[in-house]
Amino acid sequence: MLEIKSIRDKLMRAVECDQAGLILEAQDLYDDGRQMLFQIMAHETDEAKKKSLNERNREYIDRAEQIKEHVQKLGVGGQLVAHIPIDENSVGNSYRSLFGKYLDAEVKEVLLEEPHLYRRHHFQNLISFLELLVKNCPCFRYIRLVTKTSSESPDDQRNALEQIKTDLSKRNVTLRIKVLNTQHDRKVVLSSGYIIMIGLGLHIFKPLNPFYSLGLCDNDFRNCRQTEVNIFRKKNLVS
Amino acid sequence: MLEIKSIRDKLMRAVECDQAGLILEAQDLYDDGRQMLFQIMAHETDEAKKKSLNERNREYIDRAEQIKEHVQKLGVGGQLVAHIPIDENSVGNSYRSLFGKYLDAEVKEVLLEEPHLYRRHHFQNLISFLELLVKNCPCFRYIRLVTKTSSESPDDQRNALEQIKTDLSKRNVTLRIKVLNTQHDRKVVLSSGYIIMIGLGLHIFKPLNPFYSLGLCDNDFRNCRQTEVNIFRKKNLVS
Repeated sequence: MLEIKSIRDKLMRAVECDQAGLILEAQDLYDDGRQMLFQIMAHETDEAKKKSLNERNREYIDRAEQIKEHVQKLGVGGQLVAHIPIDENSVGNSYRSLFGKYLDAEVKEVLLEEPHLYRRHHFQNLISFLELLVKNCPCFRYIRLVTKTSSESPDDQRNALEQIKTDLSKRNVTLRIKVLNTQHDRKVVLSSGYIIMIGLGLHIFKPLNPFYSLGLCDNDFRNCRQTEVNIFRKKNLVS
Repeated sequence: MLEIKSIRDKLMRAVECDQAGLILEAQDLYDDGRQMLFQIMAHETDEAKKKSLNERNREYIDRAEQIKEHVQKLGVGGQLVAHIPIDENSVGNSYRSLFGKYLDAEVKEVLLEEPHLYRRHHFQNLISFLELLVKNCPCFRYIRLVTKTSSESPDDQRNALEQIKTDLSKRNVTLRIKVLNTQHDRKVVLSSGYIIMIGLGLHIFKPLNPFYSLGLCDNDFRNCRQTEVNIFRKKNLVS
């Protein structure tokens, strides 16, 4: 049975994140807290108690709704600040080269929408992206990944993502994975106000041929697939 | 049958490299030319012709000897400019972090002594090192790699090194592989005058555990084995 105290703790942490402008993490905590509250209320037979519980937590429930609306507006709109066409077989397009300059101490949270994460090179690209975030953004502490379930190898996908999640948690970064099987958009939203849209998502690099070639470690040496990168800047991320 | 013209061409290129201060490449070209000359002389039955051939090429033969002596002095001596202890399980020790600042437009040739090159992660480390050289050193055009034959899988070793050699040649960098099975030293000599000595050679990184962790692409996130790096600077590389 859930305890009221653990719910209150979660909601208090949600308020802290909310006040610190960490809206993705706040949303998760409000959502978790709200779910737990509803669970308790569903088991509560005393109508008076149920009503009081609802009233006492009204502000959290309302704030959770508000935040949800804010998050829905994330990654929409903004002013185009960079348009980078990537030619077929071009090089010099590591994530650092493409958008490294937007990764700085202002980035605390990241929303990554990347539907395709089920093969080894997909996870490798994800890790390369995360390495850059951890290295360049000293205040980075939360990433929400929205992806699809792998139909090929769901267990491998789960294992790989769990490994990455555990590794990030040791670095004080929370990875929250949301599965959305209707998803096809690819997008990176930085809490500093930048939205990075890459036509092909993270997977812009061609395989090495032969295997032992430059590009094995540094993606700047990899040939790329034709796509384009558009980077937008929003003054106020949630409006 | 070897033609005198192709020998002369090789020796002319040796002189060009020699004059440009590319002593490793010059040594190889002088050596090749000298070998070819000796081969011709061995087949020459006319003693007068043989003598004339020897006399006309005396300067190259002498210069080849001189260069050989110079190369033997490479990587010996110099003034210590950096001592970097690497603790067991420490991080932040990618090649870029350790000695990236010594890789610049002054580096035209590199001598790499690395006896252990036969497993996948060995080749990966070699490629990571080469990527850094190619990226940071715009005048880099020649690397001599001195290594041991793999007793485990000589064919795989040959294939991997050939793949790397072919890839480098497309980038106008010559990789010359010298097999020296008595070798145990590990050393990097830059033609700009720096000598980088790492106790464990290139292979300072521990394997990832679990596999999908930060460090898969960026070695700064890898835990290291305990070793130390000493960097020396010679004013005149060949004396």
